[in-house]
Amino acid sequence: MRAKAVFYHAGCPVCVSAERMVAEAIDRSRFDLAVVHLGKDRGAIRTAEQAGVKSVPALVLDNQVFHINFGASMADVAKG
Amino acid sequence: MRAKAVFYHAGCPVCVSAERMVAEAIDRSRFDLAVVHLGKDRGAIRTAEQAGVKSVPALVLDNQVFHINFGASMADVAKG
Repeated sequence: MRAKAVFYHAGCPVCVSAERMVAEAIDRSRFDLAVVHLGKDRGAIRTAEQAGVKSVPALVLDNQVFHINFGASMADVAKG
Repeated sequence: MRAKAVFYHAGCPVCVSAERMVAEAIDRSRFDLAVVHLGKDRGAIRTAEQAGVKSVPALVLDNQVFHINFGASMADVAKG
């Protein structure tokens, strides 16, 4: 079974760069990757926060959160 | 040809966690991964700084730096 990987972003330049490089570097044969755009999928903001995401871009691997560089805080993402 | 990926860390708990999860999630069929422990390989500190690494852990993919969470600043790493 593949482990779950979720890449959260909000469409900002920092996020887009990280998404392209980091998310695409992940071994898809071992990780089932989902990319969630919190600016478009507002309902996922709560899910991301509950997963421990404090800022975007963030990569959640097997329930462990990795914040990558710093695009925006979740507070700013929630403000929209 | 595989792209170059370098994971810089300094042995701190944040780094070790990121190393295990993020570096190991990378698709090794596409990326040639090197893991550099700056606490042990002091000569690599300058190389990392020149690559744009500001804090560890950091992942450099194809010359682009991604700082993951925050373990320690390069200034602290350099102090030893």
